[in-house]
Amino acid sequence: MDEELYTLIEFLKKPSISATGEGIEETANYLKETIEKLLGVKSNIEKTKGHPVVYAEINVNAKKTLLVYNHYDVQPVDPISEWKRAPFSATIENDRIYARGASDNKGTLMARLFAIKHLIDKHELNVNVKLLYEGEEEIGSVNLEDYIEKNANKLKADSVIMEGAGLDPKGRPQIVLGVKGLLYVELVLDYGTKDLHSSNAPLVRNPCIDLSKVISTLVDMEGRVLIEGFYNDVRELTEEERELIKKYDIDVEELRKALGFKELRYSDREKIAEALLTYPTCNIDGFECGYTGKGSKTIVPHRAFAKLDFRLVPNQDPYKIFELLKKHLQKVGFNGEIITHGFEYPVRTSVNSPVVKAMIESARRVYGTEPQVIPNSAGTQPMGLFVYKLGIRDAVSAIGAGGYYSNAHAPNENIRIDDYYKAIKHTEEFLKLYSTL
Amino acid sequence: MDEELYTLIEFLKKPSISATGEGIEETANYLKETIEKLLGVKSNIEKTKGHPVVYAEINVNAKKTLLVYNHYDVQPVDPISEWKRAPFSATIENDRIYARGASDNKGTLMARLFAIKHLIDKHELNVNVKLLYEGEEEIGSVNLEDYIEKNANKLKADSVIMEGAGLDPKGRPQIVLGVKGLLYVELVLDYGTKDLHSSNAPLVRNPCIDLSKVISTLVDMEGRVLIEGFYNDVRELTEEERELIKKYDIDVEELRKALGFKELRYSDREKIAEALLTYPTCNIDGFECGYTGKGSKTIVPHRAFAKLDFRLVPNQDPYKIFELLKKHLQKVGFNGEIITHGFEYPVRTSVNSPVVKAMIESARRVYGTEPQVIPNSAGTQPMGLFVYKLGIRDAVSAIGAGGYYSNAHAPNENIRIDDYYKAIKHTEEFLKLYSTL
Repeated sequence: MDEELYTLIEFLKKPSISATGEGIEETANYLKETIEKLLGVKSNIEKTKGHPVVYAEINVNAKKTLLVYNHYDVQPVDPISEWKRAPFSATIENDRIYARGASDNKGTLMARLFAIKHLIDKHELNVNVKLLYEGEEEIGSVNLEDYIEKNANKLKADSVIMEGAGLDPKGRPQIVLGVKGLLYVELVLDYGTKDLHSSNAPLVRNPCIDLSKVISTLVDMEGRVLIEGFYNDVRELTEEERELIKKYDIDVEELRKALGFKELRYSDREKIAEALLTYPTCNIDGFECGYTGKGSKTIVPHRAFAKLDFRLVPNQDPYKIFELLKKHLQKVGFNGEIITHGFEYPVRTSVNSPVVKAMIESARRVYGTEPQVIPNSAGTQPMGLFVYKLGIRDAVSAIGAGGYYSNAHAPNENIRIDDYYKAIKHTEEFLKLYSTL
Repeated sequence: MDEELYTLIEFLKKPSISATGEGIEETANYLKETIEKLLGVKSNIEKTKGHPVVYAEINVNAKKTLLVYNHYDVQPVDPISEWKRAPFSATIENDRIYARGASDNKGTLMARLFAIKHLIDKHELNVNVKLLYEGEEEIGSVNLEDYIEKNANKLKADSVIMEGAGLDPKGRPQIVLGVKGLLYVELVLDYGTKDLHSSNAPLVRNPCIDLSKVISTLVDMEGRVLIEGFYNDVRELTEEERELIKKYDIDVEELRKALGFKELRYSDREKIAEALLTYPTCNIDGFECGYTGKGSKTIVPHRAFAKLDFRLVPNQDPYKIFELLKKHLQKVGFNGEIITHGFEYPVRTSVNSPVVKAMIESARRVYGTEPQVIPNSAGTQPMGLFVYKLGIRDAVSAIGAGGYYSNAHAPNENIRIDDYYKAIKHTEEFLKLYSTL
């Protein structure tokens, strides 16, 4: 067994469950030692208010600096009974290695590390690299923002590569150029101290009706957000982005089946891709008031609340959108409580940026196929922290040792051993190309 | 101890909890025997699909026939730890008798029974009386409609006196001339098989938003129902009803405090009385969709439901209102499921009807005070069954052995022994007057 596979197995055998803390410290230590042994540089275990960050710099006095973001923590293993091999046995069977974290995200982390080692060994590393390994990604990166703010000078770089992309169902490597932003808000109306017998309905306002009226003013039947100014800052799609959307590969009927909804808003493949990747949204995640059990109960509820998320696109600013929302709520007469649960900036890197060009061309060379380039994920990741807090120009989610088949977050998580080696190769080729662009 | 009090105590000592069935059969038997012993007529225990009805007729070949409705079942006793005397001990302390059912509604039942006995004994009963004692009122009168339909001929009468009224906080007897009607409906929108990650929000309709839009079309900010034709059948208030509303005694600030809502729609006492007693309403009892736990979760819920009750006034027909609602829902594009949980007719008897005139005048004589005459209750009772199914012209809720102080449905339920004797006297005077009007 070669050093690449042996080291990965050792890494996968260590539990590092951020939710419980199990194995976190040992795994962080293992990572620090492995970095120092393989790359010949000093590595630090850096405290946060939660699990530590493992950090290292490889300075080759190059013009460009790349920040590499990964996480060493994993999801809990439950339901344990559905695992066919122990989750931390790192069992090899046929062409695969099975372990919690194999795909998300230890395989990718270790592949990138060996690629850097190979280039150092061959004196071919022509990019300064900063390694930032977080230990809380699976519990929502709770202390990452604070860490980044406190270490902003140290973390400066030209580009960042994030985790989160892998191989699509057709085996093509995904290259994701950004993420949607997020604003998450809870609205609460509380008119009294207790629910009333509904014979009192003539005398009091019903918070459930009032909140329904507020919600009904937010979005029209086509899903368009009705808050004044909401779309003002949305920048138009570039020609390149339109091209990427045209090429985005979705089987509409399979998607509909997978979602399980009777109807989709659109039936056209390209329209679906455009909406999914580039439309900002206002969505209701939950709403509750009054009696929600079986049958009937006649009350005027005293309290109602709704949870709303806004997915944002370039150049929408979640804090500015929040101000517009508050203005809208005031206009429609909402006088309840507003609780915020999150602000995330949208990110969309140009397909023509050096980091993306290098990522696409290296993917072609290593995988022998055209990669799937996606303008941004339909979802949200804390990519904005790097772009907005550190002033890093370009960010991309790409290079993944796992794929569509990998059961990330589920039992029997696995990667193909071949895909691990391809990820090493992809990183090497990427770093070489990136240094020249 | 006289027979009146002794018999009541025996009656109160028998548990008759309709929810569990405890003591129902024994109590029904006791009632049958008591009627036969006191009144010298035959009484029947009549089967329903649930607990039996106890029935008797006293035919004195009078022109007028009065139906007397009461129930012999009681609420469960929990929380038992809060009772200061055992709930079925029927303990006398100072001027009161404590027992589950003392106020609701065994005291009233027995008071009426002794009044009839006294008149029979004195040969002064000049009204035919039909006694209908239900055993399921506390569980929603589930089989009463069926019983009434099957016994429609037998139950025919000119008027009916219902239970449910007692003494108000100032000790005045309440005379309630009717009830609001009810339509209870549940609306369900279900778009799929599972909740989706909210990154899919651009692709699917959100049932929570759609249901909010539907609800927002039902009622305006002033509480006026927006369903076309909803108010068409509402008959205007009569002069007599306006007079009753003017006299309806409410302390606005005490009411607001008791309700616990920060604001009432109206501050004027008379306007409050008018709204409470005579406005039909559309109220949301409950609404639920998606994630309703703490913090944030980003999903598009697949299912949303809302529970609605309509309180109706003369001459609104709940079945007709349901048709108008369905038409409205269709118009606003609601294409989900509609589940009905109840239809009840509104009832409002004229203050000039013989039964009400007799009730008011007899109350004045017995209590030495002006009774509180209320055009109808703000809530709903199955009074419409008697009026609509049996064609009985006049119905009134009046004569109660209990009062504001009685803790009906709560621990330490009680009545003043004096109020029990007053209820006997009130019934006697009422029956005598009624026969002459």
